[in-house]
Amino acid sequence: MGYDELALAAHREWRGKIDYASTVSVTNHEELSVVYTPGVAAPCLAIEREPELVREMTGVGNLVAVVTDGSAVLGLGNIGPQASLPVMEGKCVLFKQFGGVNAIPIALDVHDTDGIVAAVKAIAPSLGGINLEDIAAPVCFEVEAQLHEALDIPVMHDDQHGTAVVALAGVINGLKLTNREPRNTRTVVLGAGAGGIACAKMLRKYGVEEIAILDSKGLITSDREGLNPYKREVAAWNDFRLNPDGSVPQLSDVIRGADLFLGLSGPDLVSPADVASMNREALVFPMANPNPEILPEAAAEAGAAVIATGRSDFPNQINNALAFPGIFRGLLDAHIPKVQDAHKLAAAQAIADFVSDPTPGRVVPSIFEDGLGQSVAQAVMSAE
Amino acid sequence: MGYDELALAAHREWRGKIDYASTVSVTNHEELSVVYTPGVAAPCLAIEREPELVREMTGVGNLVAVVTDGSAVLGLGNIGPQASLPVMEGKCVLFKQFGGVNAIPIALDVHDTDGIVAAVKAIAPSLGGINLEDIAAPVCFEVEAQLHEALDIPVMHDDQHGTAVVALAGVINGLKLTNREPRNTRTVVLGAGAGGIACAKMLRKYGVEEIAILDSKGLITSDREGLNPYKREVAAWNDFRLNPDGSVPQLSDVIRGADLFLGLSGPDLVSPADVASMNREALVFPMANPNPEILPEAAAEAGAAVIATGRSDFPNQINNALAFPGIFRGLLDAHIPKVQDAHKLAAAQAIADFVSDPTPGRVVPSIFEDGLGQSVAQAVMSAE
Repeated sequence: MGYDELALAAHREWRGKIDYASTVSVTNHEELSVVYTPGVAAPCLAIEREPELVREMTGVGNLVAVVTDGSAVLGLGNIGPQASLPVMEGKCVLFKQFGGVNAIPIALDVHDTDGIVAAVKAIAPSLGGINLEDIAAPVCFEVEAQLHEALDIPVMHDDQHGTAVVALAGVINGLKLTNREPRNTRTVVLGAGAGGIACAKMLRKYGVEEIAILDSKGLITSDREGLNPYKREVAAWNDFRLNPDGSVPQLSDVIRGADLFLGLSGPDLVSPADVASMNREALVFPMANPNPEILPEAAAEAGAAVIATGRSDFPNQINNALAFPGIFRGLLDAHIPKVQDAHKLAAAQAIADFVSDPTPGRVVPSIFEDGLGQSVAQAVMSAE
Repeated sequence: MGYDELALAAHREWRGKIDYASTVSVTNHEELSVVYTPGVAAPCLAIEREPELVREMTGVGNLVAVVTDGSAVLGLGNIGPQASLPVMEGKCVLFKQFGGVNAIPIALDVHDTDGIVAAVKAIAPSLGGINLEDIAAPVCFEVEAQLHEALDIPVMHDDQHGTAVVALAGVINGLKLTNREPRNTRTVVLGAGAGGIACAKMLRKYGVEEIAILDSKGLITSDREGLNPYKREVAAWNDFRLNPDGSVPQLSDVIRGADLFLGLSGPDLVSPADVASMNREALVFPMANPNPEILPEAAAEAGAAVIATGRSDFPNQINNALAFPGIFRGLLDAHIPKVQDAHKLAAAQAIADFVSDPTPGRVVPSIFEDGLGQSVAQAVMSAE
């Protein structure tokens, strides 16, 4: 059987991937009177008097909601909230497995910024953190910014920052292997959705100065018209301009001589000639899922020195699960109210450092390596 | 140690009464590819094509949210959403323990009808049912009515209907023991909050025709001014009028000759003389918690034949937990989209019938009796 058949059969068998079990036993009136009335009034009143006790006397401090509106699920697009639940439950499983974080799937029946923000703010007292997931750009940017501002629990859109953190980890080790400094690393990012823009921003925070980013129309230059504010911001990070005839430069025009390529777009959009035109010992990360912008073998033949994809069946999988469980573990344990760039940069560095002896075939660890989540958590806490 | 000290210590030790565990294992790339990407895309697409598959392929069909705004928690009042979490977690434990229902606490930071309704509608795709809890009257009535109308998953405000169902169960056996028919059972309900009005309505559906209900000002008569719509409805169920001088009749004026008293008010509001003035073999249910309207011993001395309270340390505890786990078990298993009176009446009858040989000291079962939840669930399903 292929994964499709296996997954359909397994999901029918599981009927849900989370079990909401009790940590306590209630087998007689004595126990009931402590778990529930009348005893439960005492912790309620204690929390009313001293609000921070809620983290000691309830599970709120270890509970993250995986929140989506189902508008941009995996590569499947806008499949709606209920059809997205298998992914959200899966994400909750990874939170628990790799970070010891309790997580619940919250699929929303609202799809505009105001509706999503209002719903998440309303349920926030129940939660220790919020993982936004598979919400389409540009709504996802505005939702995250507003919730980050409004709430005093950490909010992270994982499609942006999880990907960006892990890609940066791979880049850190790739730069080390090829003796590059971030400042001199000419970078091309293909794809200006949530993941592409977040990767560009994270690289910039890390010190990469020259970044060309392309959307479906081509290069995003600062003299292009009709850019949304998110694209306008990243447009300033390259010196390219529209062609003299007003046309938009394309990938092959800008990848020539580049040191680093990150793909967050779609299958087969990069040719071997594109890779061959890059600087020597180029770093090529075609991360489109499930089919990358160029297959690793072709990229290697065209001269790429380090190759990373989104797939588990090739070396160097850029997998969000390397980052988000440990990041939230650290945020929750240190009661960090807002995720900042310093936390994400520290997480990327910790993931890179977890590979004690990087090679071109191993610039990031596997998610099954013991202690990764805890290392990331520690780094996040130290960055506070 | 008293329950307060025990509960404080226990809640600090537990740090949350729910463990969000995985039903699946993820220890290698093969398993990960079925639980999460790429395999998880197949159930997502299957649900997109055939929405009802969401109940087979995710946990949504067995998940209830215990939703509160923290505005009327136990007898503690408006303590706010986070201070209410120990109660909500406790309720989730009871759902799981007595009904096998997965439940999550959702404490809301909105307190008006529109805000609560919008938040619950937004998260509804994640849920199989909604248990509203500890929301103050009259907001709770409007919230429940609007959600009942808008959603195609069951919505039940347990403070109203859980209490009413279990009280009715006790009444059913009390009537049997004293050879009464509901039609001729003159009833007095003290307390016109969520619980009092729901009890009055449930008794009326069961066939009790004459019901006098009192709020803090006294009897609710149809000629009293300034009644909200909920009080106006129940006012029609008695023939009392304001006194000739315009004053409001009080409990002692209307309890005389009554067959059944239900108290959902506060401590010590009923005197032995009040009970003594009732019809012979009266049924007296002083359910205020933790201190009843009259203590059972005093009511018995005044001639009450059957006495039930809200407390576990007296016989005949009218405990919502006899009802809600089984009611939701049945609603979920039969995919019942809206809770109707027939379901609640069936649940009450099932709880009453679960006591095979009722006596004055045993008109309702204990929640620790095996099979109660399943009996209630079966009755609810049969009523559909």
